[in-house]
Amino acid sequence: LWTGPVVNCDSVKKIHALPTPCLVVDLDRLESNLDKMSRFTEERRVALRPHAKTHKCVNIARKQLERGAAGICVATIAEAEVMLRGGVRGLLITGEMVGEPKISRLTRIVKEAPETLVVVDNSQNVDDLQNAVRNAGIHFGVLIDLDIGQNRTGIQPGEPALRLAEHISNAKSLTLKGICAYAGHVAHIAGFEQRRASSLRALTQAVETRNLLLKHGHDVQLLTGASTGTYNIDPEIDGLTELQSGSYIFMDVEYRRIGGSSGKVYEDFSPSLSVLSTVIHRSSNKAVVDAGLKAFSTDRPFGPEPLELSGVQYEFAGDEHGRLVMDSPSRDIRLGEKLRFIPPHCDPTVNLYDRFFCVRGDVVEDEWPIMERAGGAPHF
Amino acid sequence: LWTGPVVNCDSVKKIHALPTPCLVVDLDRLESNLDKMSRFTEERRVALRPHAKTHKCVNIARKQLERGAAGICVATIAEAEVMLRGGVRGLLITGEMVGEPKISRLTRIVKEAPETLVVVDNSQNVDDLQNAVRNAGIHFGVLIDLDIGQNRTGIQPGEPALRLAEHISNAKSLTLKGICAYAGHVAHIAGFEQRRASSLRALTQAVETRNLLLKHGHDVQLLTGASTGTYNIDPEIDGLTELQSGSYIFMDVEYRRIGGSSGKVYEDFSPSLSVLSTVIHRSSNKAVVDAGLKAFSTDRPFGPEPLELSGVQYEFAGDEHGRLVMDSPSRDIRLGEKLRFIPPHCDPTVNLYDRFFCVRGDVVEDEWPIMERAGGAPHF
Repeated sequence: LWTGPVVNCDSVKKIHALPTPCLVVDLDRLESNLDKMSRFTEERRVALRPHAKTHKCVNIARKQLERGAAGICVATIAEAEVMLRGGVRGLLITGEMVGEPKISRLTRIVKEAPETLVVVDNSQNVDDLQNAVRNAGIHFGVLIDLDIGQNRTGIQPGEPALRLAEHISNAKSLTLKGICAYAGHVAHIAGFEQRRASSLRALTQAVETRNLLLKHGHDVQLLTGASTGTYNIDPEIDGLTELQSGSYIFMDVEYRRIGGSSGKVYEDFSPSLSVLSTVIHRSSNKAVVDAGLKAFSTDRPFGPEPLELSGVQYEFAGDEHGRLVMDSPSRDIRLGEKLRFIPPHCDPTVNLYDRFFCVRGDVVEDEWPIMERAGGAPHF
Repeated sequence: LWTGPVVNCDSVKKIHALPTPCLVVDLDRLESNLDKMSRFTEERRVALRPHAKTHKCVNIARKQLERGAAGICVATIAEAEVMLRGGVRGLLITGEMVGEPKISRLTRIVKEAPETLVVVDNSQNVDDLQNAVRNAGIHFGVLIDLDIGQNRTGIQPGEPALRLAEHISNAKSLTLKGICAYAGHVAHIAGFEQRRASSLRALTQAVETRNLLLKHGHDVQLLTGASTGTYNIDPEIDGLTELQSGSYIFMDVEYRRIGGSSGKVYEDFSPSLSVLSTVIHRSSNKAVVDAGLKAFSTDRPFGPEPLELSGVQYEFAGDEHGRLVMDSPSRDIRLGEKLRFIPPHCDPTVNLYDRFFCVRGDVVEDEWPIMERAGGAPHF
């Protein structure tokens, strides 16, 4: 059997020598995005707990903490485990931990990191969590997951949330720490003013519920929410204590299209993430790259956009292929050359890769691992 | 830092104890699909070189070879490397190997496994391959990738293909072994007779080109093509020597919808692949599972279908969430219960996971690794 190394990379220093398709992060742009959000939240006196479901990468979470983040949001138990093993603390798990084996895995996590916060939206789940940790003598904090219009998880605002708060206060091993109110349905509304109006309307329900809970003697230290699309809108809300924005570090075609507070393209943050591909076919009116629907997210009604080229249209052409239709290409495209594309949607694109290749200019400076894929249970 | 194991799995024997979302293969169904295709190709005296881009798993490739497959198709250089390291031989790389580092990696592979076949569709690429292996004293076989209507890679049938064959015959280290003619645009045509007519029309171009090449003294031992949608159509073509079908081992929502030679649902092969999820939210008219657009392919205009449940509609509801709309559910759905779904499209769904959990009935019998994600270069 062949056991040799796959590629000799001692000599790889330049981006164009990377294996394709691969995921590339422009470090100058990434750092500029991290710095900008850090400065913004500091000035606005709102905490930042950025969402790691965007990057699934301990190296980036550490950079966010170094710049003052209050902690890190994660979506799944596997993300929480990977972050914790990487020394990342102050985790907020934004998905409900329901059923086995999630509850057992959560118990191990809160034993090690008692500051970990978990959302709940259901009294039966509260009972299950309470029963799981009671005998272990563990306590941890929970946030009420509030449905402020996304129609996904979360309990309804007002009385239903109050009843859940009362249920939590009877669970001796759990402490209510506040409310998680993420308006995912608002994040990508095109047009700044439309987005602003929708977000403030959604968050007003969260503030009213917070006030109701406070009136009844419940503790609501945290009111956490916000996306990259509303980072500069939601701090207007009196009572919002922290932002969960994630995509600002990378950006993508979708976020660029929603428009900013000034301008048609949303350019508050710079597109730092791209997929590098090779032109593997070239004929008169067509070029084909080796990056298809296993290389880009496909959950949006538009495809990737070329980074350093205009007048060509990318079309998905199978698992490993993308077709470039030549409308009026800004330059010639040669067989074998490398082309970069901004992904349509950053989070699920990152999810398709094992590593980020980190470049500064055209030099490959580092390589960061992306955690395992769905169902992740590293030592299973 | 926490370094403990993530899950204690010594006790996990039943499917419902698996971490979710995860990918489950029903071994009885998988084996039945493997056996059926093996018997079919034997009876029809056509070789089978199944496509491993469907499963990206050495364990499954071995099962295909054990049942008489002539070799294994792979789409990428990384797939070829993983298969070769796993002892899988007789590889046909169905994607053009253009540019560095692909050509260097290919050189290592053909040195170790000189029977490896690679497609070419361009004379410049032929020259690049020839130059790469000439000095190493290596020879290997190539197939002309023929565009029979997919409008992706491949050279045009007839004279252009003949000119490429002549170019190949001048490349001393390459040997023309035949033609690769994959009609990807035909694979999912709904309605057996429509699909049959389109596939035979497409493949007729390949046969004519083969005859042209033979007339000019070129060797065309192999004419390889066919999908799961046309496995029982293409052997009608006199001259087709092998089938490349891949999805027959798993099936998916898309293939089930195209219809079979008898019946509206294509049931020649049994759906053996599913995603196991947990119901993490339950309210009056809605259930939410923990499997969203990071757990299923999203490249088709329809979502996953529940495996053991009817009267509910799955809707994507974010990276980690799917919403079940209750039209007339065939039974109650409880918080915390586990539900299985057939993925919309099998290949890109497999690409989202690190492992298959293999079940027989409800017992977890084995766990098979899925190779690394895009840009794979294991020792990079």
